[in-house]
Amino acid sequence: MSIYISKKMSGMKPSAIREFFKYAADPQVISMAAGNPAPDSLPVKAISRLTAQIMEQEIDAALRYSISEGHTPLRESLKAYLGGQDAYDSDRDEVIVFSGSQQCMDIACRVLCDPGDTIICEDPSFIGSVNAFRSWGVNVVGVPMQEDGIDIEKLERALKTEQKVRFLYLIPNFQNPTGYTMSAQKRAECYRLAKQYGVLILEDDPYGDLRFSGEHILPIKCLDKDGIVLYARSFSKTLAPGLRVGYLCFPKEMAGPVTVAKQCADVHTSVLAQLICNKFLTEEDMAAHLREVASVYRRKCGELLAELDKLPAEKISFSRPQGGMFIWATFKDGRDAGEFCMRLVQEKKVAVVPGSAFLAQPGPSPYFRMTFATPTQEQMVKGIAAIGEML
Amino acid sequence: MSIYISKKMSGMKPSAIREFFKYAADPQVISMAAGNPAPDSLPVKAISRLTAQIMEQEIDAALRYSISEGHTPLRESLKAYLGGQDAYDSDRDEVIVFSGSQQCMDIACRVLCDPGDTIICEDPSFIGSVNAFRSWGVNVVGVPMQEDGIDIEKLERALKTEQKVRFLYLIPNFQNPTGYTMSAQKRAECYRLAKQYGVLILEDDPYGDLRFSGEHILPIKCLDKDGIVLYARSFSKTLAPGLRVGYLCFPKEMAGPVTVAKQCADVHTSVLAQLICNKFLTEEDMAAHLREVASVYRRKCGELLAELDKLPAEKISFSRPQGGMFIWATFKDGRDAGEFCMRLVQEKKVAVVPGSAFLAQPGPSPYFRMTFATPTQEQMVKGIAAIGEML
Repeated sequence: MSIYISKKMSGMKPSAIREFFKYAADPQVISMAAGNPAPDSLPVKAISRLTAQIMEQEIDAALRYSISEGHTPLRESLKAYLGGQDAYDSDRDEVIVFSGSQQCMDIACRVLCDPGDTIICEDPSFIGSVNAFRSWGVNVVGVPMQEDGIDIEKLERALKTEQKVRFLYLIPNFQNPTGYTMSAQKRAECYRLAKQYGVLILEDDPYGDLRFSGEHILPIKCLDKDGIVLYARSFSKTLAPGLRVGYLCFPKEMAGPVTVAKQCADVHTSVLAQLICNKFLTEEDMAAHLREVASVYRRKCGELLAELDKLPAEKISFSRPQGGMFIWATFKDGRDAGEFCMRLVQEKKVAVVPGSAFLAQPGPSPYFRMTFATPTQEQMVKGIAAIGEML
Repeated sequence: MSIYISKKMSGMKPSAIREFFKYAADPQVISMAAGNPAPDSLPVKAISRLTAQIMEQEIDAALRYSISEGHTPLRESLKAYLGGQDAYDSDRDEVIVFSGSQQCMDIACRVLCDPGDTIICEDPSFIGSVNAFRSWGVNVVGVPMQEDGIDIEKLERALKTEQKVRFLYLIPNFQNPTGYTMSAQKRAECYRLAKQYGVLILEDDPYGDLRFSGEHILPIKCLDKDGIVLYARSFSKTLAPGLRVGYLCFPKEMAGPVTVAKQCADVHTSVLAQLICNKFLTEEDMAAHLREVASVYRRKCGELLAELDKLPAEKISFSRPQGGMFIWATFKDGRDAGEFCMRLVQEKKVAVVPGSAFLAQPGPSPYFRMTFATPTQEQMVKGIAAIGEML
């Protein structure tokens, strides 16, 4: 018999980025496609040491069932950690541990949106989140990005015209895919508009710890006197993505349904992974580790920009991020990057991701995304030279 | 502002069982409530040793992003392991790793059901799954249980009368909460009916490895010549629930949407947890371990039954399971067990779960569920004596 697939899933396509993994898996391909952290930025030795200690000291806790909200000592450490930064009043919020920040996005949408409701996001945006939203039958409306963040005028127009907008999805720091950072002024304007139009903000901040130049800008969460911001963070870029540990800080009044949704989804996040994160947070010098991580990304970003600066400026331009993992390139003649990227990987064995993969509405795009996190300097030299030849 | 909660989540209540954890957390309470595995059945030393080896040999794989389908060596080991048992033709199916079998249920429903569709389940049934189904806006219809499994006549009536039935949810081995096992004949009849009425079967088998008496009965999956059975298993009862690793074997034609749903949900399951399971499966003697696990449960079940046999048979009866973790008690006078269970935990500090918690439709129930997995023999003696006093 033919198997019926639900309406919400039958229209979904696998993420184009994850499809690119297939090319990247070819060891001959220089991959600047996937959003993996720089291997030399992960604290491998510390994690190995802490895991051995967990096996000796608290293996029973690691192996048992836990509560859906997350391992209590980790939640307390996170509240203390966040409360110590940015004048964020973490006591006003609930903090729940999720299986990576992807699950924060999926569950926020599960709890907040009915099918047919609307989410407004930056355009382009992180496709993993946008796909999760779409899988809930939600209408995703993109508002164009500018170098200092979302276009506020167009955002207000969208808030005026769109129906049943449940939240704005924003990545203010070193956005994926553009690398752009939202200015403090625009963060305040987004907050003001959200309040005015009665919508929530889902602030996704996986890269905030990866700032390597410029000045720190407060998360929108720190402006949240009204309890309208959900703030998602992750250990995936700073400790290890394979552990799958993220967390969401959100208004306490949502705690009931968020906890039930987490219960339904996977009961709780792997306890061993939570214990590793907690031990790192409480026993290691997180601030020193983050300085080291930032220095790795500063160096690697500088190396890629040095190569990109050799390309003909009349043909291509690119963003100069202050942190994170991504650079956004623009073909100045406005041509669609799709065919270019496909030829690049097939003929030159260099993988980047065409901008169309990140659009709220499908269509051509003169952009492509590169990461400086994973390629070696030698690979960057070769990869950008190949792009130069193709131009 | 008041936060809008989605229709699907706003009607949900936290699982009554998980609410009982609050009582069970009181160290003075003898808990026979939660479905935790017997602590002395988990291979703690082996997991500790294997984890240390992973930290030495493959820590990079443990910390990196992986593919949504699961760690490839684990998926291959699972196919080989399942293919070696029960004449199950694992090559016909896809196997995907999930974050515990709870996630198998949640994602099966996500992929297969629209809001308003129907799922037929045993009544009573595992409330974690039923809640996940309900959270998708699905209509859950219960069909009464008998000691040899679901009532086939009433199942056929339900299949005839209910609209848009997408799947039957069945726990054929040592069912939660009843401890009943479905006979081979009824398994075949369920399969025949599912085929006849064009619905799938979601076969949940977390306890199948915990048989300690009677003869092994083939899973329904082994009858699946037509590609209509989804088969969920878990490492939670045999290795460790805290790791959160389960897996689903299902018809290959569903692989696309299932993979996308997993991507949207949490990208992939914790790689470290997957590596531990794979190492155990390939390097340890799983068959010998399962024999040891079964012997622990055989002893503990016998200990609890010995105490229960002291209770007045005219007032209470109970199931005599051949495996798993649960015994199902019945008040012969038909009184609702809810008040009894509440008084038992408040006055006698003994926690069991009232049957109403497991019903497809809320209502009174003359049943309650006990586990023999976690209490010590001394606690069983005290706990059952307290029940006797209350009777």
